[in-house]
Amino acid sequence: MKIMASKQILPTAFDSDTVKGVEGRVLIGKADGAANFCMRLFQVAENGFTPRHQHAWEHEVFIHAGHGAVFLNGRWTAIETGDTVYVPPGEEHQFKNTGDVPLMFICVIPAQAPEL
Amino acid sequence: MKIMASKQILPTAFDSDTVKGVEGRVLIGKADGAANFCMRLFQVAENGFTPRHQHAWEHEVFIHAGHGAVFLNGRWTAIETGDTVYVPPGEEHQFKNTGDVPLMFICVIPAQAPEL
Repeated sequence: MKIMASKQILPTAFDSDTVKGVEGRVLIGKADGAANFCMRLFQVAENGFTPRHQHAWEHEVFIHAGHGAVFLNGRWTAIETGDTVYVPPGEEHQFKNTGDVPLMFICVIPAQAPEL
Repeated sequence: MKIMASKQILPTAFDSDTVKGVEGRVLIGKADGAANFCMRLFQVAENGFTPRHQHAWEHEVFIHAGHGAVFLNGRWTAIETGDTVYVPPGEEHQFKNTGDVPLMFICVIPAQAPEL
C-alpha cells in the first residue's frame, strides 16, 4: 500500500526545444509493486506544452486542474478541469496550457512503457 | 480518441447497507477501445462511504477533490485533494468522505476486473 501527497514525490522537469515548463511525477509505478499500469501526474506551467509525439502505448488522462488544449486527430480541442482524454496507441498527441494557472493532469500508461 | 467532460458520462449510483452516497463513472474503458486498464471516477457524498472489501485486482487512486479517509492495512488514514493511494491486490480497503463537499477520486483497475 501507499498513501502519499503527490507534492511529496520528487518531480522530473522537462524543458527543451520540444517541451516547455513540464514537471512529471510517478505517483504509482513498479517501485510501489504496481505490475500492470503506471499512474503519473503532470504539471504544465503557464504557456508550457508537452512534446508532440506518438508511441505504441495508450494514455488514459484526467484533467485535475487548470485549462488547456489537446492536439489529437490533427486538431486542437479545449480541455479543462474534470475532462477525460483517451489517446489510443499510435495516435499523435500534445497537451498545452492555455490558462493562467498550472495545468495538472493524471496520465496512466501500461507497464511496458517508460514510466517517465 | 475520446475527449469528454466527466459530467457528460452517466453515473451509476450505489446505495445499500454496505455502500452509501456513491456515484461511479467509467471515464475510459473497453467501450472506448482501452484494452489494458480502466479509468473510473467516483464521487462520494457528504457522510458517504464505499464498501469495505477486498479483491484480486489492484487500485491506483488519485484524490481529485475533497477530504476523506481510507481504510488500508487495518487502520484509517486521512486523505485529501492531491493525494495518491495504491491498494495492492487482495488488500482490504474502504473510502469515506469526512468533509462537507463531495469526495472525488480517480480509480484505475486492470482490464480483467469489472468496470463498475
